[in-house]
Amino acid sequence: MKFFQVKTVTETLEIIHKHYGPVRQPVTLPLGQALGMVLAEDIRSTEQVPHFARSTVDGYAVRARDTYGASDSLPAFLDIQGKVEMGKPASLLLKEGQAQGIPTGGMIPEGADSVVMIEHVEEVGELLNVFRQVAPGENIIRAGDDVMAGELVMSAGQRLRPQDLGVLAAIGKTRVTVYPRPVVAILSTGDEIVPADKAQLAPGEVRDINSVTIGAAARACGATVIDGGIVKDDYAAFLARARELFEQADLVILSGGSSVGTRDYTEQVMQALGEPGVLVHGVSIKPGKPTILAKAGEKPIMGLPGHPASALIIFHLFTAPLIARLEGLAPTELDRRIVARIGRNIPSAVGRSDYVRVKLEKRGEEWWAHPVFGKSGLISTLVKSDGMVEIAAQKEGILEGEFVHVHLFA
Amino acid sequence: MKFFQVKTVTETLEIIHKHYGPVRQPVTLPLGQALGMVLAEDIRSTEQVPHFARSTVDGYAVRARDTYGASDSLPAFLDIQGKVEMGKPASLLLKEGQAQGIPTGGMIPEGADSVVMIEHVEEVGELLNVFRQVAPGENIIRAGDDVMAGELVMSAGQRLRPQDLGVLAAIGKTRVTVYPRPVVAILSTGDEIVPADKAQLAPGEVRDINSVTIGAAARACGATVIDGGIVKDDYAAFLARARELFEQADLVILSGGSSVGTRDYTEQVMQALGEPGVLVHGVSIKPGKPTILAKAGEKPIMGLPGHPASALIIFHLFTAPLIARLEGLAPTELDRRIVARIGRNIPSAVGRSDYVRVKLEKRGEEWWAHPVFGKSGLISTLVKSDGMVEIAAQKEGILEGEFVHVHLFA
Repeated sequence: MKFFQVKTVTETLEIIHKHYGPVRQPVTLPLGQALGMVLAEDIRSTEQVPHFARSTVDGYAVRARDTYGASDSLPAFLDIQGKVEMGKPASLLLKEGQAQGIPTGGMIPEGADSVVMIEHVEEVGELLNVFRQVAPGENIIRAGDDVMAGELVMSAGQRLRPQDLGVLAAIGKTRVTVYPRPVVAILSTGDEIVPADKAQLAPGEVRDINSVTIGAAARACGATVIDGGIVKDDYAAFLARARELFEQADLVILSGGSSVGTRDYTEQVMQALGEPGVLVHGVSIKPGKPTILAKAGEKPIMGLPGHPASALIIFHLFTAPLIARLEGLAPTELDRRIVARIGRNIPSAVGRSDYVRVKLEKRGEEWWAHPVFGKSGLISTLVKSDGMVEIAAQKEGILEGEFVHVHLFA
Repeated sequence: MKFFQVKTVTETLEIIHKHYGPVRQPVTLPLGQALGMVLAEDIRSTEQVPHFARSTVDGYAVRARDTYGASDSLPAFLDIQGKVEMGKPASLLLKEGQAQGIPTGGMIPEGADSVVMIEHVEEVGELLNVFRQVAPGENIIRAGDDVMAGELVMSAGQRLRPQDLGVLAAIGKTRVTVYPRPVVAILSTGDEIVPADKAQLAPGEVRDINSVTIGAAARACGATVIDGGIVKDDYAAFLARARELFEQADLVILSGGSSVGTRDYTEQVMQALGEPGVLVHGVSIKPGKPTILAKAGEKPIMGLPGHPASALIIFHLFTAPLIARLEGLAPTELDRRIVARIGRNIPSAVGRSDYVRVKLEKRGEEWWAHPVFGKSGLISTLVKSDGMVEIAAQKEGILEGEFVHVHLFA
């Protein structure tokens, strides 16, 4: 048995970033199926957006110099030469002294360099009175203003949001190469654990909560989830089921029974699945110290605490970033946290990161985070919480009114 | 034609909260399918959690008074009476002077009122040396500590997160009544709009971006999306297609062409779909002034600006909360925003809410929001942005270093 030193939160996150990545080959999908997935290719535009110079207002395309000096008292007079139609090429060559009607988004005719807004003109038959001068380029988006041909539009490792899909649509890139959604298998262990839908509990029995919460949290991260069921505290049965799931999944999560015996089994099973084996055995945080992280071949295996509340907190801290790595996300991507002031003093032991569940309250323009206390086994405290606050290992606690970062629960 | 006054952002949100709600009957689903959906029932627990008193540590169940005064130099001596097994009832009645081995999560035997941790005892054959005294209740979760029988666990109007599903699993509530996912249909209009996968654009043509971005954003909100395709600027064809979609969907989004003619059509079509008709015609914000919101029967219809960037901003501001109402979410639910300091001065006109796209940067413990400038038609600026900052209607702008709230893009 190797000797493992308990790791800090930061060390554990560094191991996650360094040792794990996508375990599956990228696939090419239509845009409509790629929302939330991570790009496996750099994308350069093969064309410019917009494709042609467009008007940003309803008005008249003109040569700017024909309007110089125009005002309410001294309008410029131009000859109206028809109207550009939406979706049609602007075929006319605009000459000196001419103006052509144009809708918002219409194509700027050749010869024109600006657009006068409809509010600043008056049509008198074929004659246009222009009451305001415009500068060259005014009220126009030029071809390529949004995206230039050859431009690097997006990079591999980036998660596709709605607006990203929009730019890809704009450049005509309607199929993208992305990493497939990771498959996450969850196996609950413990002699006391019974399926959640068991109608009447016998004394000593506990319903399986972790497969529900951890399964849902993994789905919220974009994973496909295999519910691996429940195994008793029996090493052979545990290993056999874990092996089956390991073959099918990209990540196996073992939601350990809470007794010492089961914890030992969990570690042995993780070692038995393959080399290099366990990388992290124990993290100096509360709750959630008995967290185990291993690797067999390229695939991660993770052991979460049995307590549902602890398991979900460890999931947010470590499993969610791990799944993001499996999805192909670059480690530099932003984490989403809000700043709040803490609602009361919270003591903490130096040398250990504490995670305190909090409920948010808005006072004026500020968020206040109020600790939700409860024994670590209570899942109901998580329901009352909006997120959690880290008290860093080097701190003795935080004082009321101090600014803290709240990791929001999904 | 009615006369419509341009509404403020707040007035528009109030109208959304007041006039819209779920348009479909609730359905009952297994927990595994209910993630992210909104409860249509109040849930009271019919049982207590935990179901029985449990140990929170590995150790020995004892009567606290038998340990009083115990210390390293003067241990208490107790008779070991076997061990509680996980998942089994604790059948022994613990008497004075006795101790029973118990794993974390094990059932507390009758007669015991506390647990001594394994670290604070020594087993000598059948004799237990106890080196630390415990108080009644120490290292125990009592039956009902987490959830009491009869307790209101969750209320209608609440969105189900992983931890919420966990509590439902814990109380054996494995099927829940929720509002079905709203069906959102998107119809793009404009003579210039062509499908995004068209290989070669003719001059004047523009690819359909909004059906991609707005479709993805609606999916990210939990909706099921119907891509209604593209119609030309022809009132009869526009109305016919809108009617078809209105029959199938809970919300029809008309992504309007940008010309004045199309904007007029959009409003006429919305009025023609049914009473009460248009509720909001124009919002005093930039970009996105030509936003239209209507109601026909109980169903909402929404007109978004044609510019993709404006359309997506309006979606985040108004369509996302509207979809949340269709999903059954109570209007009081928290919005997720982060606090940041603005990276430079931004001027703004009094009397109009401006929305400025920003990119976030972390400096030490603080977020800084840097404006991403660009013409409002540019979708690429949205890709470079992490969120947007509101400059309230009564402000003349914001100064560098001021704290602002950033609405994060999904």
